[in-house]
Amino acid sequence: MAALARSVLVTGSNRGIGLELVRQLAASPRPPQHIFATCRDPEGPRGKALQELAAQHPSIKLVQLVNLPSIRGAVRAVGSHLKDQGLNLLINNAGVSSHATLRSLDSREIALVSLLQEFLPLLEKAAKGVGKEGLSCSRAAVINISTKLGSIGLCLKVPEAPMYPYRASKAAQNMVTRCMAAELQDKGILCVAIHPGWVKTDMGTEKYHPLGQNSVQGILTVLANLSQDTSGAFLDWEGNTLPW
Amino acid sequence: MAALARSVLVTGSNRGIGLELVRQLAASPRPPQHIFATCRDPEGPRGKALQELAAQHPSIKLVQLVNLPSIRGAVRAVGSHLKDQGLNLLINNAGVSSHATLRSLDSREIALVSLLQEFLPLLEKAAKGVGKEGLSCSRAAVINISTKLGSIGLCLKVPEAPMYPYRASKAAQNMVTRCMAAELQDKGILCVAIHPGWVKTDMGTEKYHPLGQNSVQGILTVLANLSQDTSGAFLDWEGNTLPW
Repeated sequence: MAALARSVLVTGSNRGIGLELVRQLAASPRPPQHIFATCRDPEGPRGKALQELAAQHPSIKLVQLVNLPSIRGAVRAVGSHLKDQGLNLLINNAGVSSHATLRSLDSREIALVSLLQEFLPLLEKAAKGVGKEGLSCSRAAVINISTKLGSIGLCLKVPEAPMYPYRASKAAQNMVTRCMAAELQDKGILCVAIHPGWVKTDMGTEKYHPLGQNSVQGILTVLANLSQDTSGAFLDWEGNTLPW
Repeated sequence: MAALARSVLVTGSNRGIGLELVRQLAASPRPPQHIFATCRDPEGPRGKALQELAAQHPSIKLVQLVNLPSIRGAVRAVGSHLKDQGLNLLINNAGVSSHATLRSLDSREIALVSLLQEFLPLLEKAAKGVGKEGLSCSRAAVINISTKLGSIGLCLKVPEAPMYPYRASKAAQNMVTRCMAAELQDKGILCVAIHPGWVKTDMGTEKYHPLGQNSVQGILTVLANLSQDTSGAFLDWEGNTLPW
């Protein structure tokens, strides 16, 4: 696999899809030079798997990201590692439990927008890199991990309750992705929403399917093939377009 | 025009589209027997136009609806007027300023779901009425007034800022409409999201277009033609399907 990007940041990377993304990125034949793995408490017991992974791969840097005020500290930490380079790829994967209340989902959307706002200078710097044209993850991109359950068009039947708050928040998040894509296009930054497939996560609310590794392989292949034609799209881990 | 429904409730009916809906419903050749017009303060100065309208049309009953706790009082008031009959048509029009914060938009989605939950027994009663088959506004229906700006697919360019919170909240609201439609279908209740066109409202953020009256005429024509085929759809005031 060609290098997806020189630098990647993955939020919520201490477990589930985030951890697997960091693992596969680090183990790829041409790994990114910098993999910033953020989570709430990278030094604590819930960051153990991530710590072990980082011990094997010097490209992985653990960065704390707890809440809005901590974003700026994370931006400074990332910026100081990147020196004069920008950040190519920002993967928003930090999870939201479907049991969360609307109030907390709320802050999730704010977080998505705030995260982008704070990291935008680093993404713009990457987008302006020499010889970079068109849109791609190797230039500059924001990937928002979403879910098929957020597709209004599909309106999937699920055994659980209709989960209005969860689904409504995911639809709202998809709208944010689409608005971001429209706004960032002229800056040379790609933006996409991705449904990762049904994978086992600690949240335990999405059906278990032993897809974890394959799903992440799929996502990385999809990311490598993104272009201006797919910016603003809602794709699944196999690259299929999902209806909003 | 044939009677759209025996009983209709319109929220946010003291101005804009809500007021015009009440006006045209009351003035139609075969008006509903009961038009429940809700707003925050029907007796106060901001309810003046509505009070004048109600003075001309005994079918119009003013009902106070301020917040979640007041919904039950409204349900009781409506129920006592309807006696043994149910409520046929619930039009959720209460507006949300695009300047609202995400926190308050939040309560808007809660309000949409809570309003439905509290009025559901009255809608179910209407749906069970003798000789009622299929889905229609004359049987039982929930209409959520939405906006084209909430279409993720269209992702309209607007001169103003991208208005993430407003648009995200409207996409979330559309998801709620779609989930409601799926859930209510088996109960014989239709559910649709409608974009009313660009009309002047006190919120003043959507472009003025002198469509107010025509828009509402269009909406009422669309409502009269709704069936199980269109339940769960996102339609504009001319009956065109909009992408989510």
